[in-house]
Amino acid sequence: MSPPEVAAPAARERLVLERIAARRARPALFRDARIGLAHGAGGKASRDLVEGLFLPAFDSEALRQLDDAGRVHVDGLRLALSTDTFVVRPLQFPGGSIGTLAVHGTLNDLAVTGARPLALTASFVLEEGLEAAVLETEVSTMAAAARAAGVELVAGDTKVVERGRADGMYVCTTGLGRVDRRAHTSPRRLEPGDRILLTGPLGRHGIAVLLARGEFELDAEVASDTRPLWPAVDALLEAAGGRLHAARDATRGGLGSVLNELATASGVGIVVRERDLPADPVVAGACEILGIDPLYVANEGQLAAFVAPDRADAALAALRAIPGFSEAADVGEVVAGPPGLVQMDTAFGGRRVVDLLVGDPLPRIC
Amino acid sequence: MSPPEVAAPAARERLVLERIAARRARPALFRDARIGLAHGAGGKASRDLVEGLFLPAFDSEALRQLDDAGRVHVDGLRLALSTDTFVVRPLQFPGGSIGTLAVHGTLNDLAVTGARPLALTASFVLEEGLEAAVLETEVSTMAAAARAAGVELVAGDTKVVERGRADGMYVCTTGLGRVDRRAHTSPRRLEPGDRILLTGPLGRHGIAVLLARGEFELDAEVASDTRPLWPAVDALLEAAGGRLHAARDATRGGLGSVLNELATASGVGIVVRERDLPADPVVAGACEILGIDPLYVANEGQLAAFVAPDRADAALAALRAIPGFSEAADVGEVVAGPPGLVQMDTAFGGRRVVDLLVGDPLPRIC
Repeated sequence: MSPPEVAAPAARERLVLERIAARRARPALFRDARIGLAHGAGGKASRDLVEGLFLPAFDSEALRQLDDAGRVHVDGLRLALSTDTFVVRPLQFPGGSIGTLAVHGTLNDLAVTGARPLALTASFVLEEGLEAAVLETEVSTMAAAARAAGVELVAGDTKVVERGRADGMYVCTTGLGRVDRRAHTSPRRLEPGDRILLTGPLGRHGIAVLLARGEFELDAEVASDTRPLWPAVDALLEAAGGRLHAARDATRGGLGSVLNELATASGVGIVVRERDLPADPVVAGACEILGIDPLYVANEGQLAAFVAPDRADAALAALRAIPGFSEAADVGEVVAGPPGLVQMDTAFGGRRVVDLLVGDPLPRIC
Repeated sequence: MSPPEVAAPAARERLVLERIAARRARPALFRDARIGLAHGAGGKASRDLVEGLFLPAFDSEALRQLDDAGRVHVDGLRLALSTDTFVVRPLQFPGGSIGTLAVHGTLNDLAVTGARPLALTASFVLEEGLEAAVLETEVSTMAAAARAAGVELVAGDTKVVERGRADGMYVCTTGLGRVDRRAHTSPRRLEPGDRILLTGPLGRHGIAVLLARGEFELDAEVASDTRPLWPAVDALLEAAGGRLHAARDATRGGLGSVLNELATASGVGIVVRERDLPADPVVAGACEILGIDPLYVANEGQLAAFVAPDRADAALAALRAIPGFSEAADVGEVVAGPPGLVQMDTAFGGRRVVDLLVGDPLPRIC
């Protein structure tokens, strides 16, 4: 009889993974005495704040879904509401600005819940002393981005705070959308066998903003990928209909955070293949030099879609046919377990756990 | 023949008033080089910013209505969206806090457009270092206020900015509402003869916040009047139906600003009777000592309603029958002109122009 503590290597590994998964399944607790930057970073501290403080207090069915937009049903009409405040620093960066993010970000949160936008609101916090020309530029940018997305701004608000009580400007946008009749997505609908489609290379937005701060002497040209994602969702719905189980834009916290959230919400495991992730060589180089994992870097124009295997090839072909989405790729699959655990088959042949982000490597990225 | 420049006193006065009205009717221009506190105060600078910059850029029919909430029509359903960011300083004050304002303020903007709330969203900007206990208190307060108003929070967002880049916390709330079938209000529906009903005494909120800052050595106890206004709107609609021409909560900029906005939007004149304005003696005393006109002080639980004369008495009786609204009063009327001009019959027997607020006597009041 072999002693019980000596397990075979494969069994031992399974035990470790199951222990990690069990730890993950515990309810989130918020026990910090003060708010820190990590609470806004989209990783573990954000999850503890949202699930440990906001959810128990507000306790609504829509919030419990942990979707990117809250559902509101009125007279059989399926509506969705999404809200986000943008505090990106600097206000302008290659490829975009706070104004483009404020429109794309909120409309994309509607899009990934399958909702076409009906209306948008914008609420500004302006710092005393902000140059009027900067505000004018951002307002024009927002108006153009909204027009391009076919949505009107229907309500707004402006507050001004004293010098030093904001950082130029913050913008909160809220989008009202109507869930498309073809859409039946939910963060809880992931099923073993689902294929994971990613629309393009990771990390462009986060690295573009980081380099625009000029804190690193890195001579790389990277532009944010900020863009509307409705065309991608529309194509996925057309190709896969109800077989599109979930979609999520990989913003703050990056793809790593998104996969963790959905694996936990659906009680499934996820395996991603590193070699299949579309890569931008400049971003990859910058990440390596800066010691940042691109899996956790924010994107503003990429989504991950979870499609049942019988429609995955058609969905991928539909995605690639959209201008700007030719780099879309099948990057992994949903597995039965351990529930909540995300793993990556690395380019070197090993397999590693993709954990929730701890801390905030890139504050104020959106 | 008398020389043309010598007019009779009454005619001369009319000329002056008409000149003021004509100046008001000019399109607003935004020509400032930098944002100042006055741009957020709800007076003349705010109007120039909104009508001179935001409206031309966003150019939507809903925004052009200049209503407190934007209308969105979907499949015959009349929806309304309202958004506001709250930056009040200090976060807590007698009678309320940023949390109560964030819920009441946005729901009241829906209410005065005749809309019952369907859903609420909240987006937080937190300053690094904020005490978790403060956040917990405000979140509980918001949850309780939303529950009391019968509405659920369906979506949220949290951003954290570095120390010194905010002031504790800012909250943006957006409300989605459904316009009541009885409601046909608009800032453009004021008609000569309409009576003006006010729900209660002016200035409690603004003075409560001002005193809570402790900058004045004034030993007065004043509590904010923050409260939901839907019960008042419901009673007005029941009593007056479509004869309720408009309603507006007298928040930032006070009753003086509201009357100016509506007189301009409807192209009518307004005359208010100072002696009929319900007054809080402590607030009146504080205003006198501080040299502030209560007409421009913010309220968070008072509205002005414009009711056709045949339903005005019934509407006033209905208002007074609601608990907490017994001080409601008939305070003035809509007159043919000069268009856009608000005048007040003073307690001393004279008549003066109630102009748009210039500058910001009370920054960050909501």
